[in-house]
Amino acid sequence: MHRTRVRVIEDALDANTTIARANRADFERAGVRVVNLMSAPGAGKTTLLERTLARLGAGNGAARAGVPRIGVLEGDVQGTLDADRLASLHVPVVQINTDPGFGGECHLDANMVRSALGAIPLDRLDLLVIENVGNLVCPAEFQVGEHHRVMVASVTEGEDKPLKYPLMFRACELVVVNKIDLLPHLAFDLDRFLYNVDAVHPGVRRLLVSARTGEGIDDWCEWLVGAAR
Amino acid sequence: MHRTRVRVIEDALDANTTIARANRADFERAGVRVVNLMSAPGAGKTTLLERTLARLGAGNGAARAGVPRIGVLEGDVQGTLDADRLASLHVPVVQINTDPGFGGECHLDANMVRSALGAIPLDRLDLLVIENVGNLVCPAEFQVGEHHRVMVASVTEGEDKPLKYPLMFRACELVVVNKIDLLPHLAFDLDRFLYNVDAVHPGVRRLLVSARTGEGIDDWCEWLVGAAR
Repeated sequence: MHRTRVRVIEDALDANTTIARANRADFERAGVRVVNLMSAPGAGKTTLLERTLARLGAGNGAARAGVPRIGVLEGDVQGTLDADRLASLHVPVVQINTDPGFGGECHLDANMVRSALGAIPLDRLDLLVIENVGNLVCPAEFQVGEHHRVMVASVTEGEDKPLKYPLMFRACELVVVNKIDLLPHLAFDLDRFLYNVDAVHPGVRRLLVSARTGEGIDDWCEWLVGAAR
Repeated sequence: MHRTRVRVIEDALDANTTIARANRADFERAGVRVVNLMSAPGAGKTTLLERTLARLGAGNGAARAGVPRIGVLEGDVQGTLDADRLASLHVPVVQINTDPGFGGECHLDANMVRSALGAIPLDRLDLLVIENVGNLVCPAEFQVGEHHRVMVASVTEGEDKPLKYPLMFRACELVVVNKIDLLPHLAFDLDRFLYNVDAVHPGVRRLLVSARTGEGIDDWCEWLVGAAR
């Protein structure tokens, strides 16, 4: 009797992970670092990017010393509102709508990002920021090929969000706490929020910013420039 | 030759709609009206309910003249934070966690609600408020057997949200615009927001409230008492 050797494939990937790896390989071939930026609706991702691009002067393909060339991939259920805002800052912006072709999905997945790659001038970028669909649940479950995952949490959302959406807070290496200019007007306990962040993701880096006033934006820009290297 | 008559079933329902109808039948048998309350994370659903229950004095099973007996079904990915807050107001509160049994879903569906029905004292309620998972996309796609759908939109989320999440704004018969106490501190154009609401759902009713200060809460309570009839 023959004994058939069965080869066990231990690293069976789901389709999303397979495609995310292909995206990642394409990014690395082009020398582009990629940040997946996530948050609840209205936490201020787009305003943060507007402020960032203006501060860095990253538009007009300007490869000045130390300033990365930045592109943006916008994810929204429908419309191009955010893409239009950012395109006015003269950076390459590509919009993915999850509604028509992808069934109204509440997140970006690797295949959606892959579908957009041909439209992004990767060879002329150092950094691609992917602005995910506003949602604190599903975007954290889908890798898209990114090198870094960052979330924006607004102080208007309450101290309890890390405890209610722990996967999102755990999936990120940096939590950007936005709208701190509103703290004097809110019943929001910042210490308790940061304690809750640390409870679900011990030691995760946090930056306090106001995309509106510019407070804290220098530290964020410094982090982003570092991420582009 | 025989001709076989083929009966065409035109109203083929998906599983969710079938179960939503069963839920609805159970609610009607018990004489309970049901409101599905939806919003983005941190828009203030729980604070609104706290304020509402305190204002109406709906706890302690008090069936005083004109005050409905209210119960709450809480939907969260995990934890019982919101349920604990509301239970302290002495109303029946049941928590559904979408994480352990349901795969971390970002919304409630009819089957999750059905799974909870046995734990809710329907015969002792006039109104059940279902506080959905904080998310502006998927909750709008799943009927759960409710009579009314209401969304809470916070003024901190920006004027563009109706245009970016139109299905949610269209799925509701009432948009509760919350946190209006923060308007003096925000670059938020209320008229433009209401224009956008009307653009995606012409004529939909809007109520302006601050769950924190109590402004506008009387009108909301009046709407809710009407919905309980």
